[in-house]
Amino acid sequence: MSRSRLEAFSDGVIAVLITIMVLELRPPEGVGLHDLRPLVPKVSVYLLSFVFLAIYWNNHHHLMQVVERISGGVLWANAHLLFWLSLTPVATAWLGPHLDDSAPVGVYGVVLLGSAIAFTILTRALLAVHAPDSRLALAVGRDWKGKLSLVAYAVAIAVAPVVPWLSVAVYAAVAAVWLVPDRRIERVLPARAGEPERRARPSA
Amino acid sequence: MSRSRLEAFSDGVIAVLITIMVLELRPPEGVGLHDLRPLVPKVSVYLLSFVFLAIYWNNHHHLMQVVERISGGVLWANAHLLFWLSLTPVATAWLGPHLDDSAPVGVYGVVLLGSAIAFTILTRALLAVHAPDSRLALAVGRDWKGKLSLVAYAVAIAVAPVVPWLSVAVYAAVAAVWLVPDRRIERVLPARAGEPERRARPSA
Amino acid sequence: MSRSRLEAFSDGVIAVLITIMVLELRPPEGVGLHDLRPLVPKVSVYLLSFVFLAIYWNNHHHLMQVVERISGGVLWANAHLLFWLSLTPVATAWLGPHLDDSAPVGVYGVVLLGSAIAFTILTRALLAVHAPDSRLALAVGRDWKGKLSLVAYAVAIAVAPVVPWLSVAVYAAVAAVWLVPDRRIERVLPARAGEPERRARPSA
Amino acid sequence: MSRSRLEAFSDGVIAVLITIMVLELRPPEGVGLHDLRPLVPKVSVYLLSFVFLAIYWNNHHHLMQVVERISGGVLWANAHLLFWLSLTPVATAWLGPHLDDSAPVGVYGVVLLGSAIAFTILTRALLAVHAPDSRLALAVGRDWKGKLSLVAYAVAIAVAPVVPWLSVAVYAAVAAVWLVPDRRIERVLPARAGEPERRARPSA
Repeated sequence: MSRSRLEAFSDGVIAVLITIMVLELRPPEGVGLHDLRPLVPKVSVYLLSFVFLAIYWNNHHHLMQVVERISGGVLWANAHLLFWLSLTPVATAWLGPHLDDSAPVGVYGVVLLGSAIAFTILTRALLAVHAPDSRLALAVGRDWKGKLSLVAYAVAIAVAPVVPWLSVAVYAAVAAVWLVPDRRIERVLPARAGEPERRARPSA
Repeated sequence: MSRSRLEAFSDGVIAVLITIMVLELRPPEGVGLHDLRPLVPKVSVYLLSFVFLAIYWNNHHHLMQVVERISGGVLWANAHLLFWLSLTPVATAWLGPHLDDSAPVGVYGVVLLGSAIAFTILTRALLAVHAPDSRLALAVGRDWKGKLSLVAYAVAIAVAPVVPWLSVAVYAAVAAVWLVPDRRIERVLPARAGEPERRARPSA
Repeated sequence: MSRSRLEAFSDGVIAVLITIMVLELRPPEGVGLHDLRPLVPKVSVYLLSFVFLAIYWNNHHHLMQVVERISGGVLWANAHLLFWLSLTPVATAWLGPHLDDSAPVGVYGVVLLGSAIAFTILTRALLAVHAPDSRLALAVGRDWKGKLSLVAYAVAIAVAPVVPWLSVAVYAAVAAVWLVPDRRIERVLPARAGEPERRARPSA
Repeated sequence: MSRSRLEAFSDGVIAVLITIMVLELRPPEGVGLHDLRPLVPKVSVYLLSFVFLAIYWNNHHHLMQVVERISGGVLWANAHLLFWLSLTPVATAWLGPHLDDSAPVGVYGVVLLGSAIAFTILTRALLAVHAPDSRLALAVGRDWKGKLSLVAYAVAIAVAPVVPWLSVAVYAAVAAVWLVPDRRIERVLPARAGEPERRARPSA
C-alpha cells in the first residue's frame, strides 16, 4: 500500500479542521474597536488550537517521511487519530468563552490527551511493520517528548477542577515544547543536497 | 485517463464530509460536565458516521490501487457515490438526537444503502473496463461482504418502523465487519519490499 | 509552470464547494417521514448543483489532461472560474425553497452563465499558449456544446421572469447534455494500454 | 524534507478558506431582485477577499517552484502565514456590511498587513536555507512589490479612523497591483518546452 493517499487524506482532514474552527469566530454586532473585546479570549484559544493542529500536521509530515510501508492497521490508527483531532473545533468552541471553568478546560485536555494517545498508537502501528533498525525506529527513538506530553495532559486534566488556569498554562507550555521541530526525524534523513543543506539550516 | 485526480478529488470530498459533520456538535450552553449529557448520543452517531466514511475512504483507496484504467462512466459512478456520501452529514444530524425514532433511523439506513449500492455500481463500472483476469477482478472476487451489507441495510430499513434500536445495532454491526481491512486487495498486490513485508504485517 | 498544483487547488476548491452546499440541508424539526417533505425541493436543487459542479470538475479534469503548459493568465482565468463556481452554494440556497419565483431562478441562471463564460475564457487562455495543432486545440475543436450551453443559459435567464419552471427545465436539460463525458478529449488521447483499452470502453 | 506536502497542505487550507467565506453570503429572505441589494456590498468585499487569497495562492505557487529545500523553520513560517490568512473570513464578514466604519475597515487592513508580513517572513526563512545565487534568491530580488504593499497597508490602517473609504480604495489598489502575475519567478525558470513556450506566452 502506498503512503501518498494516506498523506493526502490526512492533509485534507487537518486542513479542513484547522480552517472550520475559524467559523466560530463570528464578527461582532457593533462596529467599534471595543466590540472586539469579547473576541480576544476566543481568538487566543483559536490560536492555541491552530498551533496544536499545526504541530500534529508537522509531526505527521515528519513521521511519514521515514515510513517505508503501511498496513491496514496503520490506516485505522490514522483514522483514529483524525477522529480525536476532529473533536478539536467543538472543544475549542466550548473553551473559548469559558477559560475559567473547570469542565471546558478539562474536556479540552481530554481531546488533547486522546489525540496524543492516538498519535502514539499510530507510531506503534508503524513500528510494528518496520524493522528494529529502520530509519523510522531510529527516528522515533525513546520518544520522550511524546511521553512527557501524555503525562502533562493527564496532570492538567487532574488539575482542571481545582485551578483551571494552571491547566491552560500547561497546554500552552506543551505546545511551546512541540513548536521546536522534531529533530529526531531530520537527524536520520540523509541530507538531500549534501553537507551545505545541513549547515545552512541552523535557523530552523 | 489517469486515476490520480479522481483519487485526489474523492479524498477532498470525503475529507470535507468527515469534518463538516463535526460542525453539528455545538458546545453546550452551560459550563458543567453534566451539560455534556445531551452531546453523548450526538457524538456516538458522529462516531458511527465517521467510521462509515472512513470505511468508504479505505475501500476506495484499496480498490483504486488495483485499477489500471478509468473511463467517463467510472467518473460518473464515482460522482454518484460521492453524492450519496454527501448526504451522510444531514442524516447524521437528524439521527443524533432521535435515536429512538423510526423515520430518522430509517432514513439513515437509506443513505447507507444508497452509498453501498453506489459503491457496487462503481466496482461494476471499473470491472467493465478491466479484463476478467485483471488484478481488480481477482481482488473484487465474489464480493460477499458487499452483498451482505446490502442485505443488512435493507433489513434494517424494513425493521426501523418497528424496532428502531435494532436497526441501529445492525448499522453498527456492519461497520464492525468492515473495520477489518479488505484483504482481497492486499492479497493480489505483490509485496513491495519482498517477503519480509508480508510476514511483518500480521497485526494489520 | 506546472499544472499539478493548479489541478490540486481547483480540486480542493470544487471539493469544498460541492460539500458545503450540503450544510444548507438542515434536518427537519419533527421526527416523522412527512417532515421530510419540505426537504424534497431543496434536495432536488442540491442534486442539480452537485451535478453542475461535478460536470465542471469532469470537464476541468479532461481539459487539463491535454494541457502542455500554463501561464500567469491561465492561473487568473482559473481563479475567475472558481469565483463563479463559488457562488453556486448561495444561488442554490436561494433557489431551493423558491423554485417558482423569477428572481431566484434567474439569479441561478446568471451564476451558471457566469461559470460557463469563465470556462470558455479559461479554454481560450489555454489555447493562446498552445500551438494550433496541439492536442488541446484538436480536443477543444469547435466546442459546440460549450456554445450551446451559453445560448441556453441566456435564453433561460430571459424566460425566468415569465415562466420560471421552463428556465429550471432548461438548466436540467443542459446538465443532462453534459452528463455525457466529453469525448473530444478522449479522442485525442493515445490509448494508454494499447488497443484493448479502447475497445473495452464502450460502456463509458 | 520535501516541499510537496507543504504545498498540498497550504493548497488545502487556502482552498477551504476561499470557499467558507461564501457561507457568509446568506440568501435573502425575500424572493425579489431588490432583495439582493443588501448583498451587493457583501459580495464586493467577498470578491476582494477572494482576490487576496487567490493572490497569496498564486505567489505561494510561484515561490515554491524555485524552492530547492525547506526546513523546520520554513514549516512554521508557512503555518504562521496560514494563520493570518485564516482570519480573512471573519474580517471579511465584519467588513461586508460595514464598509463605512473605521474599526472594521482598519481591522481588515491589520489582517492584510499581518498576512503580508508573514509572507515576507516565509520568504526570508526560505532565503536562509538557499544560496545567495540560487534561483530563489534571483527570483525574489529586491521584492519592491512586497515592500510597497507593507507600506500601503500601514498607511491604509492609519487612514481608516479618518477616511475609511480611502483605506478600502488602497486595499483594492494593492490587489490590482498583484493581479499582474509575479514575473520575477517566471524570469528565472528555464523554459520547459524550449523557446517556443517563452514566445507563446505574451498574453500571460
